[in-house]
Amino acid sequence: MYASEYNSSAMIGFEHIKRISRGSPSRIVFMVMDGVGGLPHPETGKTELESARKPNLDRIARDSLCGLTDPIDPGITPGSAPGHLALFGYDPVLYDVGRGIVEALGIDFDLKTGDIAARGNFCIVDDKGIITDRRAGRLSTERSAELCRLLSDIALQGTEISVVPVKEHRFVLILRGEGLSPEVTDSDPQQAGLSPKRVEALSPQAQQTADVANRFVSEARVRLLKEDAANMVLLRGFSLRPGIPSIPEIYKLKPVAIAAYPMYRGLARLIGMDVLPTGENIRDQVETLRRHYDDYDFFFVHYKQTDSRGEDGNFQAKVEAIEEFDNALAGLLPLDPEVLIVAGDHSTPATLAMHSWHPVPFMIRSRWCRPDAVSEFSERACLAGGMGRFPATDIMPLAMANALKLDKFGA
Amino acid sequence: MYASEYNSSAMIGFEHIKRISRGSPSRIVFMVMDGVGGLPHPETGKTELESARKPNLDRIARDSLCGLTDPIDPGITPGSAPGHLALFGYDPVLYDVGRGIVEALGIDFDLKTGDIAARGNFCIVDDKGIITDRRAGRLSTERSAELCRLLSDIALQGTEISVVPVKEHRFVLILRGEGLSPEVTDSDPQQAGLSPKRVEALSPQAQQTADVANRFVSEARVRLLKEDAANMVLLRGFSLRPGIPSIPEIYKLKPVAIAAYPMYRGLARLIGMDVLPTGENIRDQVETLRRHYDDYDFFFVHYKQTDSRGEDGNFQAKVEAIEEFDNALAGLLPLDPEVLIVAGDHSTPATLAMHSWHPVPFMIRSRWCRPDAVSEFSERACLAGGMGRFPATDIMPLAMANALKLDKFGA
Repeated sequence: MYASEYNSSAMIGFEHIKRISRGSPSRIVFMVMDGVGGLPHPETGKTELESARKPNLDRIARDSLCGLTDPIDPGITPGSAPGHLALFGYDPVLYDVGRGIVEALGIDFDLKTGDIAARGNFCIVDDKGIITDRRAGRLSTERSAELCRLLSDIALQGTEISVVPVKEHRFVLILRGEGLSPEVTDSDPQQAGLSPKRVEALSPQAQQTADVANRFVSEARVRLLKEDAANMVLLRGFSLRPGIPSIPEIYKLKPVAIAAYPMYRGLARLIGMDVLPTGENIRDQVETLRRHYDDYDFFFVHYKQTDSRGEDGNFQAKVEAIEEFDNALAGLLPLDPEVLIVAGDHSTPATLAMHSWHPVPFMIRSRWCRPDAVSEFSERACLAGGMGRFPATDIMPLAMANALKLDKFGA
Repeated sequence: MYASEYNSSAMIGFEHIKRISRGSPSRIVFMVMDGVGGLPHPETGKTELESARKPNLDRIARDSLCGLTDPIDPGITPGSAPGHLALFGYDPVLYDVGRGIVEALGIDFDLKTGDIAARGNFCIVDDKGIITDRRAGRLSTERSAELCRLLSDIALQGTEISVVPVKEHRFVLILRGEGLSPEVTDSDPQQAGLSPKRVEALSPQAQQTADVANRFVSEARVRLLKEDAANMVLLRGFSLRPGIPSIPEIYKLKPVAIAAYPMYRGLARLIGMDVLPTGENIRDQVETLRRHYDDYDFFFVHYKQTDSRGEDGNFQAKVEAIEEFDNALAGLLPLDPEVLIVAGDHSTPATLAMHSWHPVPFMIRSRWCRPDAVSEFSERACLAGGMGRFPATDIMPLAMANALKLDKFGA
């Protein structure tokens, strides 16, 4: 028990936070710009944030306490689920929520105890079986739904399956039956130029699940052979629904999520947030927040475009996504919430075209923040902020403190 | 065992420190300005430290390694005991010392194994039983002692009680008897406008203790009915004396505390420090240090006024308290100790009028500090210091290193 006996940088756990958190009327608005952190453009030397015209973000930064967050640890690139769990105070290594489960929650699938969910991609393989497009050209959601129907009646002895479309190339496979286990590997090699992998059991009791998954994949390949939109499937993140303490339980908050993308709605539900119907763009989301401003005291607004354009490798489009977000903030600022946070779940530099390990710009504004000298919301500026560089899991206690929703710890 | 589960940055602990610490003639003078950190005054934009004339503190800062400490974790507001435990290297979450025990130690009460101590306040309730003043106008210590005598012969079947005055409205209740347990809730709701709460058992074996405590409170109410100074009591922090390694044991130091307030003397004794009699103000304390400079190698000097004036919400009085401290430093500087530290256990911004979560200015001066560019002892200036923002539990190893009292770790 060295780590506990010799831990000198005390990390407050949920048991303690639960004991000192209290309800109050103040509101916390938590804006998440997915993948907001970036890297300099090779020509200008400026990052996406530094290249964007963003008067609202910069104005907030001037009145805020700023910093750079590490979602997990320096050097570790988070997936979307761990990136968000860290933002909400969950140790993302301890609370390892499978991708399949998050996807299933995002489509309101009624998961039963013991169900195994996996995230699926429709993809394209060439005649040697090598993946040429992991996302089948992001085929339309309608087309994807048709392909899902084609796979829905694949019969797997003793295991009931559901194949549910999500958005574009994404679907969820749910396996229901006796003796299933999530301890199997992915078939998705996560990059083009390779063949899909066989699903392998990681423990003896998972052999049946691996067999079932591999039979599903072979049968799907047969059924998709003559399709042009996609001719193969990739599976990853086989998982069971985890036990996880909820936001209302830990922080005594009444939280709501305003997110356009299913995965983030699913994750929010998993940790006890209400989820509001909203439109496809950030202006709609801000409008939804305004309409429900009296109904909740914690608002999680998820903005996907910064990540999507970063993953596309489109620097200019990511800059524009930042500007669109900044513009929409104009509708939020008149509400003047007691605590306003702008953060990101990870960086997605357009030059890398993928999630990255770089720390993420962060700011928190409240009447009780000790101001720093930062006057711009960007990677370099936030480094000099009053929070310096810090773990993303510290954000929630900081938000609660600034909302005066935490009693002191100890006598 | 949350502390271990959430530890992401492994820290060297007491077993290691014990192994590498060694005795030597060098001295460490550790000045603690209670609640020193602040927030800007709304009119001037300057914090209490930034507003004070403090030539000695600023001169020390120029020769020091500076930083900002987090007593527990970002966002977490520490009570006085955890704030100080962190300063002396103890993980304040792991070493959770009850308030009652700390108060009892502060008045030299001879605690026996199994005794339960609780912190008491004399308070005022209105005729509906609602608390109107949690501190009964900070009644005089003499008056408080009279009221304690009035309660001292309350008879509780099978449980012996002691009601001991501390200072102003504060007293300690000690329960001694068979089958007592500290696992009970507070009767003190910690804010005016509410009624005192019933003491509840948190485990079945604590029911007897809860009953005893509630009987004490009812009987106290009856006996205080006709008093004008206070007419009710509030109890909190029921606790047992914890097992805690001592400073001489861990660091091979000969430590002494010079503190005017009982609680800090009690805490110092709990971790193995000698406690010297001293006067009520910081000049007396410095004089006490000078007189005993040859008798110890570690001096903890506790200055309470910065916290008290902050809690009063009196910005100008806190500024003056800082100036008084600075002035008294003139008597200390000629000693030129090998290691001089000025730190705080937490922030107490006058604008908030309570302990807060904001990180605390810190400086350490020794011949072996790598200098930084800080030339002023303040929140903003220390952020740019060589230590940056760091956990308060790192202070002791740093002090030991600068005193050349630590061998290297590993071959």
